Amino acid sequence: MTEHSHDAAHGYASDKEAYLKRMRRIEGQVRGIARMIDEDVYCIDILTQVSAVKSALQAVSLALVEDHLGHCVVDAARQSDDAGAEKVREAAEAIGRLVRS
Amino acid sequence: MTEHSHDAAHGYASDKEAYLKRMRRIEGQVRGIARMIDEDVYCIDILTQVSAVKSALQAVSLALVEDHLGHCVVDAARQSDDAGAEKVREAAEAIGRLVRS
Amino acid sequence: MTEHSHDAAHGYASDKEAYLKRMRRIEGQVRGIARMIDEDVYCIDILTQVSAVKSALQAVSLALVEDHLGHCVVDAARQSDDAGAEKVREAAEAIGRLVRS
Amino acid sequence: MTEHSHDAAHGYASDKEAYLKRMRRIEGQVRGIARMIDEDVYCIDILTQVSAVKSALQAVSLALVEDHLGHCVVDAARQSDDAGAEKVREAAEAIGRLVRS
Repeated sequence: MTEHSHDAAHGYASDKEAYLKRMRRIEGQVRGIARMIDEDVYCIDILTQVSAVKSALQAVSLALVEDHLGHCVVDAARQSDDAGAEKVREAAEAIGRLVRS
Repeated sequence: MTEHSHDAAHGYASDKEAYLKRMRRIEGQVRGIARMIDEDVYCIDILTQVSAVKSALQAVSLALVEDHLGHCVVDAARQSDDAGAEKVREAAEAIGRLVRS
Repeated sequence: MTEHSHDAAHGYASDKEAYLKRMRRIEGQVRGIARMIDEDVYCIDILTQVSAVKSALQAVSLALVEDHLGHCVVDAARQSDDAGAEKVREAAEAIGRLVRS
Repeated sequence: MTEHSHDAAHGYASDKEAYLKRMRRIEGQVRGIARMIDEDVYCIDILTQVSAVKSALQAVSLALVEDHLGHCVVDAARQSDDAGAEKVREAAEAIGRLVRS
C-alpha cells in the first residue's frame, strides 16, 4: 500500500455508494462469464462479455482518476510545490498502469 | 448471442477448469476492490488493483482468442472458404472490441 | 525478422495501395504533432492528436490482423495441423502485443 | 482547438527539444512501416512495428499528461477552485481518449 500524508477524505468519498454499486454490478458480470464458460457458450460471446467488463472497469478507473486529481492532487498543490509535484508523479504513474492494462 | 453453426467442442473446452479458476480469482479481486472503497483506502491503491484486474481479464481474453483461432476458425477454414472467411471476420471483430476496451 | 515458410503473397497484398495511403496520412499526422509542439500549442490539443494517431494505427493493425488470419493462418491450417498451430500461436502473440501497446 | 485562458508556458515547454526528437523518431518509424508494406514484408513483422510505434506514442502522451498536470492543472488550482475544476475535467477527458485509443 502507498504511504501517503493525506488525511482529508479521498476524492471518491462523496460518490462511495455509486462506486460500490458499480463494483457489485461488475462482480455479477464476472460471475456471468464463469457461468458462460461452465455452460460451454460460444467463445465469441464470452469474449464480448469480457470486453464489456474491461470497459466497465475502465470507466470506474477514469472516474477515480478524475476524483483523485480534483481532490488529493489539487489539495496537495495548494499545500506546497513539493507536495503537489509528488502527487502529480504518483497520479501519472497510476494513469500509465491504467493505459497499459 | 451469436448464431453459429459449430457443434464441435469450443477451443477452450480442454482448459475449462483452468479458465473457471482464473475467473473465480478475478471475482475475488473485484470484491477486494469494493472492500477497499468501503474502507476508504487511498485512491492510488484502488487504481492499482483495478489495473491488475483489467490485466487479468486481458490475459483470459487473449487465451480465449488463441483457443478460438486454433479450433473454431481453423476447423471452419478446413470445411470451406466461406465458413473460414466468416469465422475470421467474426474473430477480427472480437479482437477489435478487445483492443478498444 | 520472423522466419516464416510462407511464399504465397501476404494477406495485405491485395490492399497494398490502401495501406500505403493510410500510412502516408499517419505520417502527416505525426509531423503535425511535431509542428504543434514547435508552435507551443496547448497540451490538451496535442494529446487529442496523439490519441487520433494511435487510433489510426490501431485500425491499420486490426486490418492487418484480419488479412493475416484470412490468408496466412488459414492457408497454413489447410497445409497441416502443425503449420496451422504455429501460425495461430504467432498471430496470438502479435495480437497480445497489439492489445498491450 | 481548445479555448483556454492559460498564458504561462505549457508544461512541456522545458522539454520541447526532447519531445521534438521523439516525434522525429516516431515519424521515421512510421515511414519504416510504409517501406515494409511496400517491400511485401511478412504481416507479423509489420504488426510488431506498428505496436512499437503505438507504444512510443503512448509514452509521449503519458509524459505530456504528467507535464500538463504538473503545470497547467496545478497552476489553475492555485488560481481558483473553478479554474482548477475545469482543468481537471479537461485533463480527465484527455486521459479517457488516451486510454481508449
